[in-house]
Amino acid sequence: MDILNIAILGCGTVGGGVAQIITEINNELSVRARKKIVLKKIVELCPAKAAERFNLPLDLFCGGGNDLSATEANNYIREIISSKEIDLVVETIGGKSDFVYNLCLDILNSEKHLVTANKALLAERGQTIFETAEAKKVKIGFEAAVCGAIPIIKTIQESFTGDKILSISGIMNGTSNYILTQMQNGKLEFDEALKLAQESGYAEANPLLDINGGDAGHKLILLIKLAYGIDVSKDDLSISGIENITKEDIDFANEIDAKIKLICYAKKVNGDIYATVRPMLVKNSNFLSEVSGATNAVRINNKYSGIHFLVGKGAGSTETAMSIVSDIVFITRYGDKIQNIPEKQERNFADARQFVFPYLITFHTGNIPGTTGFIATAIGKQEINIETVSHNRHSGEKAMFSVATMPCTLAQIEKAIEEIRSEKPGMLLSEPKIMPILY
Amino acid sequence: MDILNIAILGCGTVGGGVAQIITEINNELSVRARKKIVLKKIVELCPAKAAERFNLPLDLFCGGGNDLSATEANNYIREIISSKEIDLVVETIGGKSDFVYNLCLDILNSEKHLVTANKALLAERGQTIFETAEAKKVKIGFEAAVCGAIPIIKTIQESFTGDKILSISGIMNGTSNYILTQMQNGKLEFDEALKLAQESGYAEANPLLDINGGDAGHKLILLIKLAYGIDVSKDDLSISGIENITKEDIDFANEIDAKIKLICYAKKVNGDIYATVRPMLVKNSNFLSEVSGATNAVRINNKYSGIHFLVGKGAGSTETAMSIVSDIVFITRYGDKIQNIPEKQERNFADARQFVFPYLITFHTGNIPGTTGFIATAIGKQEINIETVSHNRHSGEKAMFSVATMPCTLAQIEKAIEEIRSEKPGMLLSEPKIMPILY
Repeated sequence: MDILNIAILGCGTVGGGVAQIITEINNELSVRARKKIVLKKIVELCPAKAAERFNLPLDLFCGGGNDLSATEANNYIREIISSKEIDLVVETIGGKSDFVYNLCLDILNSEKHLVTANKALLAERGQTIFETAEAKKVKIGFEAAVCGAIPIIKTIQESFTGDKILSISGIMNGTSNYILTQMQNGKLEFDEALKLAQESGYAEANPLLDINGGDAGHKLILLIKLAYGIDVSKDDLSISGIENITKEDIDFANEIDAKIKLICYAKKVNGDIYATVRPMLVKNSNFLSEVSGATNAVRINNKYSGIHFLVGKGAGSTETAMSIVSDIVFITRYGDKIQNIPEKQERNFADARQFVFPYLITFHTGNIPGTTGFIATAIGKQEINIETVSHNRHSGEKAMFSVATMPCTLAQIEKAIEEIRSEKPGMLLSEPKIMPILY
Repeated sequence: MDILNIAILGCGTVGGGVAQIITEINNELSVRARKKIVLKKIVELCPAKAAERFNLPLDLFCGGGNDLSATEANNYIREIISSKEIDLVVETIGGKSDFVYNLCLDILNSEKHLVTANKALLAERGQTIFETAEAKKVKIGFEAAVCGAIPIIKTIQESFTGDKILSISGIMNGTSNYILTQMQNGKLEFDEALKLAQESGYAEANPLLDINGGDAGHKLILLIKLAYGIDVSKDDLSISGIENITKEDIDFANEIDAKIKLICYAKKVNGDIYATVRPMLVKNSNFLSEVSGATNAVRINNKYSGIHFLVGKGAGSTETAMSIVSDIVFITRYGDKIQNIPEKQERNFADARQFVFPYLITFHTGNIPGTTGFIATAIGKQEINIETVSHNRHSGEKAMFSVATMPCTLAQIEKAIEEIRSEKPGMLLSEPKIMPILY
């Protein structure tokens, strides 16, 4: 039996999970890959801790199990990259620093396959990386980079090849979804729910990239590249996160039988791609509304096969590692026949402000008769039909209500708000909140 | 660009969908497959009808669009099989007759790849077919055979290779699920719901194989082969269908926050495989309980990556055809590197009667004080703990109630019923209904 030699760089939550799986079910993996899978070396700054956590022998670690300085670790990495013996490198250091970027290029340039969970790197600095892999005829496995254990990448690349993807929507950040679920179920404000998430280990001490939509944006960028063959940047997506969602918003959502979720959304309309990451009001009839806690879910609407849901664990140690190990088997099986990413397509990335959604707009106003009528009239003047106006929450001198529109563009709504501001300065006590409604 | 020449045998609902997709998105398919995909010939008894339904040119059909006799069709099929030009044959005639069985063997023996949705054939007579493909080094694509559009086969074969599948459960027959959903929502009896399903096109005039669990059994047999590498027969699965489900059963299910679903179930316990197809009470906390109508859903519990759900259309023309077309692309891409089925494993198929489930047992008795106590005592004597006893439906001289047990074996329950029968002949007015409860 031929041999596939692997090195793992970084033995934290994900890298350690990879080492654990490869060690525990090595025979099965080798049978499936039809090559003996050999884990040759792990580079990790603190091997003792990792060895204990993942039940690994110390002699797997470069340096024999001793703690490494950054320089020592780097020397071991250089050895691995220049070694003719290693066939495939698992990069589980993470982040999009120059160090990791150059490391990945060096791995590919040394004609080794690369498997990684690094969504930030591939989404923001992926172009040269994919081009280098192409030039060197090596493969990049990145199933773990999008929604952890959910096999969405291989599903798009290998199972939906007989179809055309019309739209993708999904809950792709477990931390945000956990926080929103807590707010919904416990009637909490954002800060309280965030604190709870941090205490329960569902949010990191610095949760910025999770709650501001950045992490979800990375995943959507990769899915758009796979599904539509076009490159978009984070700026293109006009990402917004969940930091400003309030208990009130959730209350208004309930009133229209919807739940607020941080949604990644991409849709192809007449060759144009519209995409965004933002909180949306997902109607209870849409299964995504029921995805609670740290679970991830992706909804794909295909031209020929209709609607599909994939649901699973979006994060975790062996959960994410499973996707990496499956990529190793896939690359071992199919090697040079795999196409890393589809050919680039000539498609327009369109302005999401021109995309037609039904919206919910929430207004904070003074408690003055005539306000609702004035605002509703201003909305109607922009050719927007109104679906419902919520029960008005009057409180002292203030009032608050929401308007659910029929499908219209964000540009139309912004025009209406501009007119309200110019004709009645002072009527709006704060910036109206505008969220798409997802059926 | 190299060429892949395809023939389709049978241009009904599924075969016609395949021809339609290949015709409509031929360019995309060829780019993805990296070979020009050419649909050379279709054999169909009534081409005119098929050509109109699927918008196909008549000259694609053998015989130039004229109706064919069985003999003529068979001659064209022989031509295709002996043609050196055809690389891959799509078999969409269906059924497990000797004719189709021998046809598939002939296709493989002529060194052509075979793509099919034929679950009955592969589940009941698959062994020689897979062995022939192995001997002739050709591939069998059968994604369409299990749950139509849901890419469950490729997910198990290519995306979960880094894991161990602990259990599979799923709703794999849309007709049964549609009927059960109608019974649940409309408070209908089975016969009424079946009639509705037939009127709406969700059930065929002869719905036997759908409602008796046979069709779902075929799918489970194929999934067990893929997930665990063992061959089981329909008899092994002790299949039961939904024909005997009543409005009362659904009422008792509601009482314990569950819905009755026809469930395909397979679980590995210490190397043994337990599997069955039968109506189960799916707790509302399990997402499968929410899968309504003709939708299919598969739940996979993996050792390393936890619980996954795949949800999608289990039937339909282009829905099922999409899986066939994706198989064509997959075979064109990876050809001889694909392993049709995993290597055979040495695993026991265990007696499902010894498998531990919580159960709901429904008793019809006389309306006589002491009955509940006697029955509950008899159950307790078999070391079965009782979770709840339902509200008793007294009606004249009759009474009816259900007992939800803690996890126990079917063998234990059968023993308890035997004892009740022997100690109190006449206490049970009918055979108690026993259904597993799925959390």
